[in-house]
Amino acid sequence: MEKPFNRILITGAAGRLGSELRKGLAPLSNNFRLVDRVEITDIKDNEEAFVFDLADEFSVDKAVEGVEAIIHFGGAPLERPWDEILDSNIRGSYNIYESARRHGIKRVIYASSVHAIGYHKIDDNIDCDAKPRPDSLYGVSKNFVESLSSLYWDKFGIESACIRIFSSFPEPADRRMLWSWLSFDDCVRLVSACLTAPHIGHTITAGISDNKVKPINMDNAGHIGYVPHDSAEPYRESVESKTKPADPMDPATHCIGGWFVNLGHPNDEESK
Amino acid sequence: MEKPFNRILITGAAGRLGSELRKGLAPLSNNFRLVDRVEITDIKDNEEAFVFDLADEFSVDKAVEGVEAIIHFGGAPLERPWDEILDSNIRGSYNIYESARRHGIKRVIYASSVHAIGYHKIDDNIDCDAKPRPDSLYGVSKNFVESLSSLYWDKFGIESACIRIFSSFPEPADRRMLWSWLSFDDCVRLVSACLTAPHIGHTITAGISDNKVKPINMDNAGHIGYVPHDSAEPYRESVESKTKPADPMDPATHCIGGWFVNLGHPNDEESK
Amino acid sequence: MEKPFNRILITGAAGRLGSELRKGLAPLSNNFRLVDRVEITDIKDNEEAFVFDLADEFSVDKAVEGVEAIIHFGGAPLERPWDEILDSNIRGSYNIYESARRHGIKRVIYASSVHAIGYHKIDDNIDCDAKPRPDSLYGVSKNFVESLSSLYWDKFGIESACIRIFSSFPEPADRRMLWSWLSFDDCVRLVSACLTAPHIGHTITAGISDNKVKPINMDNAGHIGYVPHDSAEPYRESVESKTKPADPMDPATHCIGGWFVNLGHPNDEESK
Amino acid sequence: MEKPFNRILITGAAGRLGSELRKGLAPLSNNFRLVDRVEITDIKDNEEAFVFDLADEFSVDKAVEGVEAIIHFGGAPLERPWDEILDSNIRGSYNIYESARRHGIKRVIYASSVHAIGYHKIDDNIDCDAKPRPDSLYGVSKNFVESLSSLYWDKFGIESACIRIFSSFPEPADRRMLWSWLSFDDCVRLVSACLTAPHIGHTITAGISDNKVKPINMDNAGHIGYVPHDSAEPYRESVESKTKPADPMDPATHCIGGWFVNLGHPNDEESK
Amino acid sequence: MEKPFNRILITGAAGRLGSELRKGLAPLSNNFRLVDRVEITDIKDNEEAFVFDLADEFSVDKAVEGVEAIIHFGGAPLERPWDEILDSNIRGSYNIYESARRHGIKRVIYASSVHAIGYHKIDDNIDCDAKPRPDSLYGVSKNFVESLSSLYWDKFGIESACIRIFSSFPEPADRRMLWSWLSFDDCVRLVSACLTAPHIGHTITAGISDNKVKPINMDNAGHIGYVPHDSAEPYRESVESKTKPADPMDPATHCIGGWFVNLGHPNDEESK
Amino acid sequence: MEKPFNRILITGAAGRLGSELRKGLAPLSNNFRLVDRVEITDIKDNEEAFVFDLADEFSVDKAVEGVEAIIHFGGAPLERPWDEILDSNIRGSYNIYESARRHGIKRVIYASSVHAIGYHKIDDNIDCDAKPRPDSLYGVSKNFVESLSSLYWDKFGIESACIRIFSSFPEPADRRMLWSWLSFDDCVRLVSACLTAPHIGHTITAGISDNKVKPINMDNAGHIGYVPHDSAEPYRESVESKTKPADPMDPATHCIGGWFVNLGHPNDEESK
Repeated sequence: MEKPFNRILITGAAGRLGSELRKGLAPLSNNFRLVDRVEITDIKDNEEAFVFDLADEFSVDKAVEGVEAIIHFGGAPLERPWDEILDSNIRGSYNIYESARRHGIKRVIYASSVHAIGYHKIDDNIDCDAKPRPDSLYGVSKNFVESLSSLYWDKFGIESACIRIFSSFPEPADRRMLWSWLSFDDCVRLVSACLTAPHIGHTITAGISDNKVKPINMDNAGHIGYVPHDSAEPYRESVESKTKPADPMDPATHCIGGWFVNLGHPNDEESK
Repeated sequence: MEKPFNRILITGAAGRLGSELRKGLAPLSNNFRLVDRVEITDIKDNEEAFVFDLADEFSVDKAVEGVEAIIHFGGAPLERPWDEILDSNIRGSYNIYESARRHGIKRVIYASSVHAIGYHKIDDNIDCDAKPRPDSLYGVSKNFVESLSSLYWDKFGIESACIRIFSSFPEPADRRMLWSWLSFDDCVRLVSACLTAPHIGHTITAGISDNKVKPINMDNAGHIGYVPHDSAEPYRESVESKTKPADPMDPATHCIGGWFVNLGHPNDEESK
Repeated sequence: MEKPFNRILITGAAGRLGSELRKGLAPLSNNFRLVDRVEITDIKDNEEAFVFDLADEFSVDKAVEGVEAIIHFGGAPLERPWDEILDSNIRGSYNIYESARRHGIKRVIYASSVHAIGYHKIDDNIDCDAKPRPDSLYGVSKNFVESLSSLYWDKFGIESACIRIFSSFPEPADRRMLWSWLSFDDCVRLVSACLTAPHIGHTITAGISDNKVKPINMDNAGHIGYVPHDSAEPYRESVESKTKPADPMDPATHCIGGWFVNLGHPNDEESK
Repeated sequence: MEKPFNRILITGAAGRLGSELRKGLAPLSNNFRLVDRVEITDIKDNEEAFVFDLADEFSVDKAVEGVEAIIHFGGAPLERPWDEILDSNIRGSYNIYESARRHGIKRVIYASSVHAIGYHKIDDNIDCDAKPRPDSLYGVSKNFVESLSSLYWDKFGIESACIRIFSSFPEPADRRMLWSWLSFDDCVRLVSACLTAPHIGHTITAGISDNKVKPINMDNAGHIGYVPHDSAEPYRESVESKTKPADPMDPATHCIGGWFVNLGHPNDEESK
Repeated sequence: MEKPFNRILITGAAGRLGSELRKGLAPLSNNFRLVDRVEITDIKDNEEAFVFDLADEFSVDKAVEGVEAIIHFGGAPLERPWDEILDSNIRGSYNIYESARRHGIKRVIYASSVHAIGYHKIDDNIDCDAKPRPDSLYGVSKNFVESLSSLYWDKFGIESACIRIFSSFPEPADRRMLWSWLSFDDCVRLVSACLTAPHIGHTITAGISDNKVKPINMDNAGHIGYVPHDSAEPYRESVESKTKPADPMDPATHCIGGWFVNLGHPNDEESK
Repeated sequence: MEKPFNRILITGAAGRLGSELRKGLAPLSNNFRLVDRVEITDIKDNEEAFVFDLADEFSVDKAVEGVEAIIHFGGAPLERPWDEILDSNIRGSYNIYESARRHGIKRVIYASSVHAIGYHKIDDNIDCDAKPRPDSLYGVSKNFVESLSSLYWDKFGIESACIRIFSSFPEPADRRMLWSWLSFDDCVRLVSACLTAPHIGHTITAGISDNKVKPINMDNAGHIGYVPHDSAEPYRESVESKTKPADPMDPATHCIGGWFVNLGHPNDEESK
């Protein structure tokens, strides 16, 4: 069967999730254009790669030209000093959306994060588009792109899915990931669903596997058609044998952002 | 085991869904009384059939006498000129409810439609009893019966389930049905559930299979006990290979009523 | 200052509220076209009057031509046998909307009724666009027009305000009206607000004065700009001295539809 | 693997559910301390048992000392005269919480009941923490403990899960249990989930198996991680063949408390 | 005009609010029966007084006989050791409701308290029937009566208004009362409204004047018809000049229960 | 009486609203420190002024030192090219919050804007903390600060009120301002209320006068204590005589952002 896309751009393509997406999205697109700050050495036949920083608007613009959809997973992947957040996540994402507008791209899938809503409590049972409550400058930059993409849908007709990814790792690495884990395969399933859903407009959704403990209600994501297949349960015994139970009075136990809520300001950390 | 009903009336019995219900509801009732505007030729031993128009109140009254429940699936099944909607759907349904009252019928299952709420958007993630937002005169007539049946419950104690059926066809016929499809078997499951649920009062629910993309949240239908078994997924490849992707800016792509939202007024159509 | 409208159509112009609107809306329109089933004898210079039944679609069409807005207050004003409800309220209102479409009318103000939601309880504290819960066939016909006008906004761009009028009388006539009363002056204020509000799309609102006991929350009508000036309080002593306290166990005391909830079926009443 | 608890206290340990919990919770704790008003004769090696009434605060205090969690399933298990409810359920539960505070217990799992919310209707599709609407003095006492445990979390940092148990029996015993049944195994799964969930704060949840008809929406219990495995369906045929259909107009059919809503006052019953 | 009641019972009649109610409710009832634990010395012609403890069920029963409504303001008015809360507030209130049932009383107005919901935060903007979140054993006892009165409405048809009184004092005594104050006159207005509202069923509402800062949304109390006339503003300058600003990080500043949230357990306090 | 603050910092002090605040807030603070990019020439005795750009973090840091609260009204006041929005609104506001943190400032009042939620429709009747739906890059920058201030409250304990100001001008300048106007006096009232409210945590509220047509529901701002005194009504006749009625099909008529929704991208505009 014909693939629905001819060429898709992936930013952050050298990252942990980027590699998975290059492999997992192959059934959906004939070609992939890969962008990262570091070189990608194992380029395949259906791929082309560019090395630059997303803050460089001219390079972004050139990379966006000629693709039909953008998987925007690039930028700083965790808490960083303000200047880096500003350049990589805020200016970089603006460049992506502005290039998308100039080149008539129709759909963008953005890697937002649980840290955009990290101060909500696990027993709040929030919906997957709960209001912003960031736990870090990193989280604030995610809210920025969620807002920016809302504008680009309402005003310029570019559809976006902003996926608040919880914890996407090869396997659950600590007790929190027993409820926050997103398997790589489920991550691919979710991005695929966002790319092919009939209509997403501006959707904020969550990226999480079908774990037993659920920190978030996915009911308002039905129109995406994401059906997770994985769960953290098979890893429970191993994880619990290696790690101590959580302190029941620690905010990191209560809040869905986990240990991010206990971080100080990144600039303070830096000066240490 | 004894069947819960001795005789059930099915209107629209000659239609696409009527045939399925005759077969599928057999475990629930000893006998069926069938009504349609066209003759039914393959009458079985446990069935009797009447041919008349629902706008004929005397025939309706006679057909209702002696049954214990009514499956009201009759009337115009899609957009039609006003006079026909008025006679078949509005007057006809009034006749059904008024006869039900006179003869002490306790429960009615009504085929409402997604077109009663067709202008809601797929990314609104509405509940299955979302407020009226019809996409056609046909849809308006469905809202009329939803309102009428509310009165007959509150005032006269007749329970009703109004099922907003999405797309009930032998198999998904276009890309929209990949999320709107209700398989015939699931349709039978849903009507059976509505007939046997312990208490339905006045319930508005939705008729849809367990498709991957879900345009509607079924949480507030838990008391019905409907568990769909089917999904449109096995038909995806075939449907996608035969049809073009939806235009992302077309209202018919955004709205759950699909192409009905792009219909003009039926009287205009007629005069063409 | 120039008046915002040149010619407004008022249906039901001979009725209790029609007379008030003819007088009260004068500041908003140069001319009025009046329609009723009974003759209006006191025609003023800026008025013209037509006598016909709204079920007569040709007369409706002619009356609608050349106006800029419609105040649709015509039709049966309380519970009536089905045939009369069908003709006056359902067919008549369809004729109004369909003529409005053909002649490019931009805004319709419709007299819906508390009886469209009469079975809601006073301690439910419903919003003014609560879901349909009619207490009579009359109420069902009001829900029909609420649904129909929704279609005409979504599909044909005709704005409508459906006003669920509680009890509009010269003064409160019984204990229920101490909380359900809409003074004539407030009725005019509300219709004026609906006519001149910047954007109403399809709005369902409530018609009630600023009484002390409030059966309904008006928060979601802020965009109408209706500010009631009157209250039933000055009439309390007089009303209470003339009437017995309500029976606390009577559904008519609990439900906002009042004694309508205790009415039997109009056809039964008729045959008595 | 090391068990998460060294010693857990179970009140009501001689009761129907107590026996199941002694067996089912064994994987979670090295030892169990059992409390009931009646003697337990089959004490195992990892158990110790105490016989006293929960209204006896000194015995409670001694029993609580040295445990790490409390499963509080003791007290009158159904409607009883006021004095008994007061002593067993109100004073007894206060003693439990107050001892928990004095001895630094961190988590309590409490057997609340559907009868704390018994007057909600099945077609209300309530959430599992719906507002109090008790159907008996028994239900009022459950609301009392729900409130008390809220205080002990907010003020003293003791986490509680209050489980509104529907009908926990060996198998469904009547038609209502076809939707209200909680299998013993699912009861154990639920209590285990409450004991090991990462953070419960003060949670009110529901205890029910995965029955087809669902009287309650469990979405806001995701943080507990309870996944029921059982259903009443396999028992349907047997139950339906032995029992009459429900009367559709009986409040016991409409309300989730079932026949409790038809009980008179227990003191009246007693004096008969 | 005839007064709507012949005889009303007031419990706690010797208290701060009791004296106000004796005076303020005079227009509504010919006679008052007063109950308190302490003697009332200024009995008027239309009054009779009884001195006993509400825990004494026989005295309660005798006092309730022959009245038409009960204003139940008796019991411990602030945090007290458990035994006193149990006797005065829990057993005492049960005695009131049970006597009301036996003697066919139709309406009870109960003095609940902000301390039934004291842990809600002022910026939560809760509704006046927010879920229980008590800040003291006193608050728990208020939740108990709210639950008990719900049962007596649903099962026995006795209407109740539970008023969550914030701070009813002669004038605002500290900075918190600038938003929590309920003037004595407004208290009388509110109780009068509850007594005469057409239908209250089981209503939980809030008792607060029309202060500038509003810790609670009164929208869902419209059916009561309470219109406050007073405000704490005239006292602001005086209060602010005499008291220090609140500590912005103190829970007593955040929570609507104020300093109650900082109280320890009353039994601890006692043993000091 | 003693003023509650000794020194308050006002950014954007030379702007339209800055001048009003200098005058209007005088009762609340002994001294004011003024900051703007342009010189302020009419400095009063209780004022000191600094001229610099908010993107200059060192100047910001110096200006923040020694104040007790910040009124942050600086930055680009309407749609501007991205680089300017980035510097003035995003980097500038970060500098303000980061300096506030370093210097222990306890409360910040921020001038957010209706343009942070401009694509919501007037008939949506949104709450004043509706979810982000910006109509411009300017609006996106307002959402950025709303998110940033949420972090600074949750993590660093700095309280913020983000005021979504509608249209603050000397008087209503067009038909839209008849519902969007915030008088200068009401603006001062609102900022004063935000400064002195007992607890604001992180509050998003709206800035609008008591106009007749209300595009927003202020119920969830009760804890601020803002009571508007002004209305656009006295200006209606004058405004309507000078301006044409709105086009009912124009998005600028439907959306609360008004003509901002019809703006193109600022960079396109610039290149013209």
